[in-house]
Amino acid sequence: MALDTKLCTFTGRMVIVGFGSIGQGVLPLLLRHLDGLTSDRITIVTAEERGREEAEDYGVAFHNNPLNNDNFFQILKPLLDKGDFLVNLSVDVSSIALVEFCQRVGAHYIDTCIEPWAGGYTDPDLTPSLRSNYALREAALSRRAEFAGGPTALLTHGANPGLVSHFVKQALLNIAADTGLTVEVPTTRDGWGALAATLGVKTIHIAERDTQVSNQPKQVGEFVNTWSIDGFVGEGCQPAELGWGTHEKHFPADGRRHEFGCDAAIYLMRPGASTKVRTWTPLEGPFHGFLITHSEAISIADYFTVRDGDAVRYRPTVHYAYHPCDDAVTSVHELAGKNWASQATQRLMMHEIVGGMDELGVLLMGHEKGAYWYGSRLTIEEARALAPYNNATSLQVTSTVLGGIIWALENPNRGIVEPDEVDFRRVLEIAAPYLGEVVGAYGDWTPLQDRGLLFPEDIDESDPWQFKNFRVV
Amino acid sequence: MALDTKLCTFTGRMVIVGFGSIGQGVLPLLLRHLDGLTSDRITIVTAEERGREEAEDYGVAFHNNPLNNDNFFQILKPLLDKGDFLVNLSVDVSSIALVEFCQRVGAHYIDTCIEPWAGGYTDPDLTPSLRSNYALREAALSRRAEFAGGPTALLTHGANPGLVSHFVKQALLNIAADTGLTVEVPTTRDGWGALAATLGVKTIHIAERDTQVSNQPKQVGEFVNTWSIDGFVGEGCQPAELGWGTHEKHFPADGRRHEFGCDAAIYLMRPGASTKVRTWTPLEGPFHGFLITHSEAISIADYFTVRDGDAVRYRPTVHYAYHPCDDAVTSVHELAGKNWASQATQRLMMHEIVGGMDELGVLLMGHEKGAYWYGSRLTIEEARALAPYNNATSLQVTSTVLGGIIWALENPNRGIVEPDEVDFRRVLEIAAPYLGEVVGAYGDWTPLQDRGLLFPEDIDESDPWQFKNFRVV
Ligand SMILES: NC(=O)c1ccc[n+]([C@@H]2O[C@H](COP(=O)([O-])OP(=O)(O)OC[C@H]3O[C@@H](n4cnc5c(N)ncnc54)[C@H](O)[C@@H]3O)[C@@H](O)[C@H]2O)c1
Ligand SMILES: NC(=O)c1ccc[n+]([C@@H]2O[C@H](COP(=O)([O-])OP(=O)(O)OC[C@H]3O[C@@H](n4cnc5c(N)ncnc54)[C@H](O)[C@@H]3O)[C@@H](O)[C@H]2O)c1
Repeated sequence: MALDTKLCTFTGRMVIVGFGSIGQGVLPLLLRHLDGLTSDRITIVTAEERGREEAEDYGVAFHNNPLNNDNFFQILKPLLDKGDFLVNLSVDVSSIALVEFCQRVGAHYIDTCIEPWAGGYTDPDLTPSLRSNYALREAALSRRAEFAGGPTALLTHGANPGLVSHFVKQALLNIAADTGLTVEVPTTRDGWGALAATLGVKTIHIAERDTQVSNQPKQVGEFVNTWSIDGFVGEGCQPAELGWGTHEKHFPADGRRHEFGCDAAIYLMRPGASTKVRTWTPLEGPFHGFLITHSEAISIADYFTVRDGDAVRYRPTVHYAYHPCDDAVTSVHELAGKNWASQATQRLMMHEIVGGMDELGVLLMGHEKGAYWYGSRLTIEEARALAPYNNATSLQVTSTVLGGIIWALENPNRGIVEPDEVDFRRVLEIAAPYLGEVVGAYGDWTPLQDRGLLFPEDIDESDPWQFKNFRVV
Repeated sequence: MALDTKLCTFTGRMVIVGFGSIGQGVLPLLLRHLDGLTSDRITIVTAEERGREEAEDYGVAFHNNPLNNDNFFQILKPLLDKGDFLVNLSVDVSSIALVEFCQRVGAHYIDTCIEPWAGGYTDPDLTPSLRSNYALREAALSRRAEFAGGPTALLTHGANPGLVSHFVKQALLNIAADTGLTVEVPTTRDGWGALAATLGVKTIHIAERDTQVSNQPKQVGEFVNTWSIDGFVGEGCQPAELGWGTHEKHFPADGRRHEFGCDAAIYLMRPGASTKVRTWTPLEGPFHGFLITHSEAISIADYFTVRDGDAVRYRPTVHYAYHPCDDAVTSVHELAGKNWASQATQRLMMHEIVGGMDELGVLLMGHEKGAYWYGSRLTIEEARALAPYNNATSLQVTSTVLGGIIWALENPNRGIVEPDEVDFRRVLEIAAPYLGEVVGAYGDWTPLQDRGLLFPEDIDESDPWQFKNFRVV
């Protein structure tokens, strides 16, 4: 695909809610690839002045008008009608409220995270279970029946969640091919679950190492990141969550099951930003990542579950293992030191980045060949050459948002859908030109490597792929 | 004291072993303040080319000639005789071997850390107990009787260990004054112990926040710090160690007592660089520091122990709570991710530092006024104005090395001594001009502040100053 290919025609109106790193990064891609989407058809509704200059450069209407539960209907109603598209790239705006709104007016919808209204991630009046992504996802999916056949509302379709669900499918096919298993590409959820089970995949990490650095040092009391600081802090303060696989023998002492819903995932009684796990990527090698909750940890585990009647026969453990950029690591360290009271200032690293890449992929473990990582390696230089207003992290997201919007327009009446239900090949095809090197690599790494050298450690030698072995205590 | 005051006369020879950040930083101070110490009387013996240019600038002999157990006698013998001074600022050279050598030849000695020969900190053939600073200190102190009345050999007299022992004494006097307790300045160990016990000091942190930053981002695979990287990695891989106070009610599950020695301290079955504690400094406020083992955690706890016959009646808990510069925080994170296999490259931050300070002091807790921090706030700008070849971290060390050398020359026949046995006022007087602001400040902070907001936490509400409450799990 060339970088100026028109991918489909869209002559409706589009509203972009939230114009931070992802909103700003996706706008040029949408104008580039959607035939008929002229700038006068786009309206940005956001909560601050950030991005106004870009909007004005493109001639796109920009409203600094924060949405809340009381005003969102009035503000959005005049801007959206049947066949239009709401692209929700905000924080602190309820995804479920906007989905419902879109179903009522007949508009398409996409987001990259199921957001609650402001404060929802850290509301001390909610139990940890109800502050989880599991609860947010269950709430969103509970509306599926009601909106069946409605305009497509694609949830959580960024890089992760989003793209990584597609990587998992491609990775499974690659492992099958490399281990001599002849398979048709599955076309059903059951088919995919059976493939993962047959290959013996026990654990899947979303293994990400962001090496982007700037020459502007982080200040004391400043949270620095390559994407939404509010987003990262919010999810970092949610309980750590993970899809809980059928091979697991050691239920964590601080683990809890939810009392409702699909039961594909558990949560830990602690913030994800204080929970570290061992993981691996081909370029970085072994590293510690944060077990930050993400919707894909739950949706992928759920999607690949194989049942015998009501009994769960197979499910992989799935979770995020995130090494954000170094400045974000120290930002998290500082945040934890203040008992999760947010820093006074934020800086979303963009122009000052002087090097590094986002190495983002899925790490499938426990199959015949041990560990297989499949994902994108995108350097900051490549990202800048590919699209304006992006860094390496945002471009992996925005290209997948583009893919999701195209897919939704091509599949306009699917109601509420998750990434796992989207045609993975179509999205990968659209996103690929923006992902740098898309590669798969096997590794002989296990979380038992080099353990216990200086001090004895409590590990399960009988199965390297137990969650207990990954966890850093 | 003016910056050109001659503090004493020394016409012997001096050998500086190791010429890294501390050796390079101390040389100008020694030439400045020791009358009679001309550059032709100084010899540097080190293990690399680092620092040769400075040595040549000052006209000091520079030998790149790594010492080991087999060659050190031959190399040092021609350079040192009765009344000369060995200043050991190396890593990987056994302090005990050099102390013994100095006692034999009649030379004075100072170091800033009790170092083992190379590999001693991480020798997997040694038990964690024998890899501890407790064991190194016991081994050194076991030679005291043998060398009683010998030339003064001052152990671990840098900033911490070193200066902080003097800060503790000044802090106790300040708290006494501020709480209306009329006291004579104690002149004996018993007297100091009684004062600490009377004031009700339960826990003492060496609470340090290094905010120095550079505009040269840390590279992947590079360990960056403001002082010895080998030194920090070595001690970071040793077991976490802490003086164990008599008020403690919860012995850590991973805690162990040594089977020998003074019993003032315990160790944890894990590297200090993976062990975090809550602490506080006046400028930074609350933060997480690493519980890195340090000799002062043991010596201060030991020094302030009050006994009834053989029974220990009072002892404070004492440990380090270290927030190194941000780049070192990410370096430690990376190191842990590689299961403590050292990074391929190192960078000791010096000229590229663009801002920040070292806020280094002692935090005395549990007394009538809660928490009292007393220490030095030295900015990089101040450090540069005060002395060449220093940053804020090194100058706190080198000025105390200077103070220790002066004190040793003024008290030449004390055999093996620890900082706690040195005249604290003399050293503070000498170091003060180099320490920036030296301040005391009370805080209403406790480690129970803002706890348990998002998740329940296992804390002891009955006594905020329990180690259990400080520890980050
Ligand atoms: N799935 C993924 O891979 C992925 C990656 C990055 C970000 N995200 C998600 O995308 C969203 C946006 O991320 P970002 O990096 O652009 O965030 P950002 O913090 O840079 O921007 C957030 C935007 O939301 C706006 N906003 C805040 N409150 C609002 C309100 N009440 N009404 C309207 N707008 C409001 C802000 O003004 C800002 O423009 C977040 O939910 C984030 O979690 C997902
Ligand atoms: N007490 C304190 O406050 C404090 C503070 C900083 C450093 N220190 C200690 O001071 C010492 C030096 O610290 P630094 O920051 O200067 O370290 P550094 O790593 O910058 O320098 C160490 C020096 O030791 C030399 N060396 C290594 N092996 C040697 C050998 N076999 N023979 C001779 N020389 C050898 C190196 O070449 C180098 O010059 C370390 O022990 C460190 O732990 C103590």
